[in-house]
Amino acid sequence: MADLLTRLMHLNAEYAATLDDDRLEDWPDFFVTECLYKITSADNVRDGNEAGIVYADSRAMLADRVLALRRANIYERQSYRHIVSLPRLTGTDKAETPFLVVRTMRDGRMDLFAAGRYVDRFDDSAGMLHFRERIVVCDSARFDTLVAIPL
Amino acid sequence: MADLLTRLMHLNAEYAATLDDDRLEDWPDFFVTECLYKITSADNVRDGNEAGIVYADSRAMLADRVLALRRANIYERQSYRHIVSLPRLTGTDKAETPFLVVRTMRDGRMDLFAAGRYVDRFDDSAGMLHFRERIVVCDSARFDTLVAIPL
Amino acid sequence: MADLLTRLMHLNAEYAATLDDDRLEDWPDFFVTECLYKITSADNVRDGNEAGIVYADSRAMLADRVLALRRANIYERQSYRHIVSLPRLTGTDKAETPFLVVRTMRDGRMDLFAAGRYVDRFDDSAGMLHFRERIVVCDSARFDTLVAIPL
Repeated sequence: MADLLTRLMHLNAEYAATLDDDRLEDWPDFFVTECLYKITSADNVRDGNEAGIVYADSRAMLADRVLALRRANIYERQSYRHIVSLPRLTGTDKAETPFLVVRTMRDGRMDLFAAGRYVDRFDDSAGMLHFRERIVVCDSARFDTLVAIPL
Repeated sequence: MADLLTRLMHLNAEYAATLDDDRLEDWPDFFVTECLYKITSADNVRDGNEAGIVYADSRAMLADRVLALRRANIYERQSYRHIVSLPRLTGTDKAETPFLVVRTMRDGRMDLFAAGRYVDRFDDSAGMLHFRERIVVCDSARFDTLVAIPL
Repeated sequence: MADLLTRLMHLNAEYAATLDDDRLEDWPDFFVTECLYKITSADNVRDGNEAGIVYADSRAMLADRVLALRRANIYERQSYRHIVSLPRLTGTDKAETPFLVVRTMRDGRMDLFAAGRYVDRFDDSAGMLHFRERIVVCDSARFDTLVAIPL
């Protein structure tokens, strides 16, 4: 268990740094080809509502999403900082990990942008861990329009 | 040391998820039968004031507390997210772990609810770790009335 | 890797506790004699600006800094809580670790004080890890005058 936990921490740390360093083009590589990525809210999950605010079911869709963000976000200069808490194994290929994202605006103001948990199914067949599923369950259902950024 | 640290991280991750998933009835199981659970403030600790905002000295008292919360909190629908930092061994059966709790209100607003450190003495006799003591030392002495929830 | 990661987590946990427990006199001991400690902003790093808000290139300078803080901060009674996320190895002697610092004022109010990442080069020659370099890269360039405290 210790080794898998260590590898999950490593995976989560790399994932967070890729987003916070704005290396979005590398983000799809954390997923298997046929994956599921979704941003949703705790309310949605509780109500059995399968729809998400963001939904992608392949690595190609994630890459498309990054292209769209690059075109759209020319004027945005906020930065984000993911604080990832301790992962928790919930099955042989499942984990849940709490996260917090702090946003820093161009003028230096900081706020709590998102909090929640990652609900993951991972794949270990390629010598390293990839996400088969990463469901980002946000505690708040009130999303900033900018939630278009990956979490 | 690595193995104990891993197990402490696991324990803390499970503890946080139990609270944040609102599985309060499972919360007393993290403690030994004759335990000490206390929520206090850094000021109290500094002044040698032993009283806490919340105090329980047995697992049965923790279970009672959960029952009381279930009766009282019918209308409360906030959610909480514990972000647990890296644990630190401070003795053979002692650890300290910083934490942050973000609260999300029903309307989606988030705020910093509590920050501080867990001061723990743990028990390893039952094949898994349990808390003999968990003193929740909050940095702020100004508690929301809702601090009645476990931290 | 697992073992080094564990030791880095331990180092970061001890470092954070030393600052948050206000044991500032012990803080220089985390560094090698000829070290580099800098607090800077992501903007500065992006612009190739080498200057930092705080700069010290020896353990002796860090100790001087602590003395100065002790003389100056008689009236300050804020407390700080470092929430350190998962470290990420970026080379054989390099790591990056995200952090968040929550400040609690005397009246109990809490705010986000700083968020960013530690960019570290460490030394493993003395039987335990020390920082050869710790560059504190804050996401915000707007510093409180109190950033004089170590991060």
